[in-house]
Amino acid sequence: MSDDRGIAQTASVGVDLGGTNIRAAVFDDGMEILGRSEMPTRAQEATDDVIRRIAACVGEALDRSSVEGEEVAGVGIGAAGLTDWRTGVVVLASNLGWRNVPLKERLEQELDGLRVEVDKDTNAAALAEARLGAGREFRHFLYVTAGTGIGGGLILDGALYRGATGGAGDIGHVVVDPGGPLCGCGDHGCVEVFSSGAGMVNRAREMLVDGAQAASSAMTLEELTTETIFEAAKEGDAVATQVVTTAGGALGLVLADYVNINNPEAIVLGGGVVRAGRVYTDPVERELRRRALSALVEVVRLVPPALGDDVGVAGAALLLSESEKDGGRA
Amino acid sequence: MSDDRGIAQTASVGVDLGGTNIRAAVFDDGMEILGRSEMPTRAQEATDDVIRRIAACVGEALDRSSVEGEEVAGVGIGAAGLTDWRTGVVVLASNLGWRNVPLKERLEQELDGLRVEVDKDTNAAALAEARLGAGREFRHFLYVTAGTGIGGGLILDGALYRGATGGAGDIGHVVVDPGGPLCGCGDHGCVEVFSSGAGMVNRAREMLVDGAQAASSAMTLEELTTETIFEAAKEGDAVATQVVTTAGGALGLVLADYVNINNPEAIVLGGGVVRAGRVYTDPVERELRRRALSALVEVVRLVPPALGDDVGVAGAALLLSESEKDGGRA
Repeated sequence: MSDDRGIAQTASVGVDLGGTNIRAAVFDDGMEILGRSEMPTRAQEATDDVIRRIAACVGEALDRSSVEGEEVAGVGIGAAGLTDWRTGVVVLASNLGWRNVPLKERLEQELDGLRVEVDKDTNAAALAEARLGAGREFRHFLYVTAGTGIGGGLILDGALYRGATGGAGDIGHVVVDPGGPLCGCGDHGCVEVFSSGAGMVNRAREMLVDGAQAASSAMTLEELTTETIFEAAKEGDAVATQVVTTAGGALGLVLADYVNINNPEAIVLGGGVVRAGRVYTDPVERELRRRALSALVEVVRLVPPALGDDVGVAGAALLLSESEKDGGRA
Repeated sequence: MSDDRGIAQTASVGVDLGGTNIRAAVFDDGMEILGRSEMPTRAQEATDDVIRRIAACVGEALDRSSVEGEEVAGVGIGAAGLTDWRTGVVVLASNLGWRNVPLKERLEQELDGLRVEVDKDTNAAALAEARLGAGREFRHFLYVTAGTGIGGGLILDGALYRGATGGAGDIGHVVVDPGGPLCGCGDHGCVEVFSSGAGMVNRAREMLVDGAQAASSAMTLEELTTETIFEAAKEGDAVATQVVTTAGGALGLVLADYVNINNPEAIVLGGGVVRAGRVYTDPVERELRRRALSALVEVVRLVPPALGDDVGVAGAALLLSESEKDGGRA
């Protein structure tokens, strides 16, 4: 897409499709943002209306970028859900209420045949970190985002690895306690029920309902949020500390499994929950180091992401060039 | 190595280096065996003596194949232990008592400069199943061997995936019960302590020592072996049944983790323990299907290996052509 002199030849559009907002940005060959747009997703509306709004958001970002249509290489979309990147179908996206939506096909119609590539949002983010961020120095890493839920993406041999049907890297449902609490996926004791933001709130609520005594005044059934739990844990509250330590430890155990299975050089660990800091990441790293094979974990670096809020749109735009490189990989 | 007309141009030597025996076989371009040799490893002897015996074993197999030296593409070795395939150093092989042995370099000296490639034996076996066996129809699969220990190898996008340092696919030390029995690796509750042959014997011994009543006359502390446990389980003995069901279930849980992490098309499950049959593999499959995300596990086939005892030498010989294809992948 770029020549040796770094002169912009084409622009790429990246779209981050979440349950709340649609964000679009137009990038030049050097991955600088030329213009952007944001619209509400309104996932409760008809799927076709949401798709037309994505097209409108792309159009507005292009208008604001002063890019001519013939200069646009295409539109990459990172969607919040399981996605088949080969067909561009969003298979299952609970935040959007979507099941088997042919997003690529429908959006190419709306955009007059402009090329569209679709992948899950965590794959787009992993790709952005690989090309522009914390993963630039690693050929083999796991990207993890721990927020309301837990997801991830794999970079193996320097390229995005999607697995057989696009689900690779979804570590949120690795089981850490077969007899543990019920998860939204139908199984018990997935890491997500302990280590995600929503999971921590549920675990703290259970403890309080069972009569556990929290010292912090914020640790009440009415006020429980991820933020109040982290605040209380930093103040030494026993209930909050147990919830956060268990959360970090469970995630560390899954990262150790990952190290034993895929032998990475690094784990890039980000997301809203991780931003709480070492109160969460210390138990993650402790359990990771303790549980993984020493010969494998000693080469592993646990690092934060380098990209901020634009990781989603940047990764989505990069899907266009990654897809070209795939060749026989799919 | 072979031209379009399928005419043999070169021969490859494959060596399976185990703790007990060295096995070598010479293959033509169609992977037919032209000759073979077997010698005892005698791992207790000096490393140099073992390496010279490997060279002698290769020489004898070549002599028996009537292959001229200039027709030999090289020697591939599958070694029982963690191996850095890039340097050909056997990093850690407890069965051999080896640590950081530069096998490739030393053996190339012994073999007058003949090319040598070294990898762990489970990677060689995975490669053989991929090219010649049960994996031919899959681009993404995990090869597992469950015997005295538990190991594996990964085929991703149709190629052997070794990870950052050669340890990818070593699923034996994925933790299934953080508070479980101590493993030889220093951690607690690895799948190997439940699901390997040695692990099952240890678990049964613990139960008998703790006073569990076994109905089968073979289930005594003196006679406990993997075979007696399987026999007793097939007769309905309660202790043996619990040991085998726990073993299969623990392995199934780890395979479910694998499915959630890497989204494969298949798992090729072999090894001495698996040959006991459905008494072991039924709980494996039950737990795999129950624990993995349904959208991912519904595409997964659990299949037995297609190759017999020659899987090791065949895979080792295939390392020579796989290595050529690697290019930038390492």
